[in-house]
Amino acid sequence: MQSILSTERTEMGLIEKTLQAIKPLDETAMTAARQRQNRLTKPEGSLGRLEELSIKIAGITGVAQPSVKRKAIIVMAGDHGVVAEGVSAYPAEVTPQMVFNFLAGGAAINVLSRQVGARVVVADLGVAADLPESVGLLRHKIGYGTRNLAVGPAMTEEEARQAVEAGIEIVQAEIRLGLDLVGTGDMGIGNTTPSSAIVAAFTGLDVAQVTGKGTGVDEAGWQRKVAVIERALELNQPDPTDALEVLTKLGGFEIAGLVGLIFGAAAAHIPVVIDGFISTAAALVATEWHPPVRDYLIAAHNSVEIGHRVMLERMELNPLLNLNLRLGEGTGAALAMSVVEAACQILQEMATFGEAGVSERDEQKLVSEV
Amino acid sequence: MQSILSTERTEMGLIEKTLQAIKPLDETAMTAARQRQNRLTKPEGSLGRLEELSIKIAGITGVAQPSVKRKAIIVMAGDHGVVAEGVSAYPAEVTPQMVFNFLAGGAAINVLSRQVGARVVVADLGVAADLPESVGLLRHKIGYGTRNLAVGPAMTEEEARQAVEAGIEIVQAEIRLGLDLVGTGDMGIGNTTPSSAIVAAFTGLDVAQVTGKGTGVDEAGWQRKVAVIERALELNQPDPTDALEVLTKLGGFEIAGLVGLIFGAAAAHIPVVIDGFISTAAALVATEWHPPVRDYLIAAHNSVEIGHRVMLERMELNPLLNLNLRLGEGTGAALAMSVVEAACQILQEMATFGEAGVSERDEQKLVSEV
Repeated sequence: MQSILSTERTEMGLIEKTLQAIKPLDETAMTAARQRQNRLTKPEGSLGRLEELSIKIAGITGVAQPSVKRKAIIVMAGDHGVVAEGVSAYPAEVTPQMVFNFLAGGAAINVLSRQVGARVVVADLGVAADLPESVGLLRHKIGYGTRNLAVGPAMTEEEARQAVEAGIEIVQAEIRLGLDLVGTGDMGIGNTTPSSAIVAAFTGLDVAQVTGKGTGVDEAGWQRKVAVIERALELNQPDPTDALEVLTKLGGFEIAGLVGLIFGAAAAHIPVVIDGFISTAAALVATEWHPPVRDYLIAAHNSVEIGHRVMLERMELNPLLNLNLRLGEGTGAALAMSVVEAACQILQEMATFGEAGVSERDEQKLVSEV
Repeated sequence: MQSILSTERTEMGLIEKTLQAIKPLDETAMTAARQRQNRLTKPEGSLGRLEELSIKIAGITGVAQPSVKRKAIIVMAGDHGVVAEGVSAYPAEVTPQMVFNFLAGGAAINVLSRQVGARVVVADLGVAADLPESVGLLRHKIGYGTRNLAVGPAMTEEEARQAVEAGIEIVQAEIRLGLDLVGTGDMGIGNTTPSSAIVAAFTGLDVAQVTGKGTGVDEAGWQRKVAVIERALELNQPDPTDALEVLTKLGGFEIAGLVGLIFGAAAAHIPVVIDGFISTAAALVATEWHPPVRDYLIAAHNSVEIGHRVMLERMELNPLLNLNLRLGEGTGAALAMSVVEAACQILQEMATFGEAGVSERDEQKLVSEV
């Protein structure tokens, strides 16, 4: 018993230690960034959200003129017992097939990551198949898919903790390789169902208000999905004030892994670009668990899934893009990375009024002539 | 007299010839692109606007899997007599100063174009200063700034035509250098005033509904700007059914140049990414003049200027980004180019279901089990 307890303490230690390392944003760096923005050759504020974003990245990194050259999209994969309820338009075998597609470079996330110069990191947190040894696949399998949340808790608390810890370890390994900006990605047939369940659990909203059609179920499939989630909440009764309990009872291995990724990146002062619905569900678990992590998050986009905006509003995150995406994989995060990089390059590379010999505002005109 | 008439005919010829070369989008290429999108390893439609955009680019270029590697932002500069009315927060000397900043590579448009791999082309259509010989500056000066539209027509019809023709010639020269995608940019202190006047003229809306604060005038400056535009419309009485007349009486040299750029690019089957408020005013003139050109336009973003959305809605263009920009120069167009490129790369580079060995939708599940 003693050895098990001490192991548990060590494991709890990684999460707790990581959370303790998450600090408030660096006000000094933010002030310096804001002041520089106002000296650049453009009217103050005229680059809108790019300016705000550059100031936020300065605060996260503690660097007045930050650079986000080294980028990664980390795609976490897992399966879901709840697919037995017929909640997805695709069969579960697509999860391992898509993992191979990611590793072969043929998926949307590969194309979009190449464009923005981000490496794609693929991790198996809980795919329901034995994946052969493959270069580049990170093996952190906690189980062969979660249990069906409509008949009991999806995970044990121990499994949920292990998956969160795996996420922390995965991002820490990437940080050792060199990382300035990280994006979240997911793959798991059926994973809009646990994500909608998580939104409903934390917000108390009706399931129908936060449940979409995922990869494309029809109307009857959608009604079945809503009923399944309602049953899961009734049965599991997750305590909305206990994020780990919500994650354990409703979440997926890849969602828990993404929670760990978010914690690990924030602790290392690395901005996290949050992709779509599933990634945002992970971000919501992370912020409900440890609110200071919110400041390290950048919402990539507003997806088609109706529960997505609810979560973004709850976290007070304003998405950068609105392109009607509903694919996941980190695709929206990869697209948004080019906006984040643009924001940082503006701050680094633009000339100031003094350097360029450009006149500043005509202050006489600002005093009304009326 | 005869020689003058024949010259005029030749000059009219360039615009007319260009308009006649603008064809409807290529349906065959669009169908092929749409079919390929549906075979790629993702749920149908899950990449939302990226999919639509790739199909549109296929239609514009006539290529089923188009590539947009060779990109340029063409920034047209001009001054405006109406600055004498105190409508801008910046003095007119900033126009030539910013032209030098563009040529030196220190402006926002230089930074954002570098990021997306677009060359910046700078053209003087009507700056109110003698610009020294400079490598890379295209010299097409029609005049030293327009006349004050609050006291008479801003241009003569001959000047407006010359500026449109210059825009056609500028983009044609870039096409000879190699061009797959072009973005519009503008520089001209005071040019939100003629742009708002153009929106009001075509739409008949109240000037106050389509006039913003430009680079940042105060409330009294804004009221002055609205009054100036109202006076200009009352005095000039432009016929809203005659786009050339609206352009002549209210427009600027750089706005007319951008109209030509749009015509020239569309005639050569090159998609045009329209930047912010001033560029969109030029796009509106172009579409009111020759409606088929609309299909060749991609709206980059929705800027802070209140008249911008009015124009986009009139043209039924849905902007890609919403980042609260209000700088111009082509900055929003450069940012949007990475979305356009992403859309094309998805179509070119993603694996199909067959290639990747990924199962398609589970059709049995699509038939409701209820």
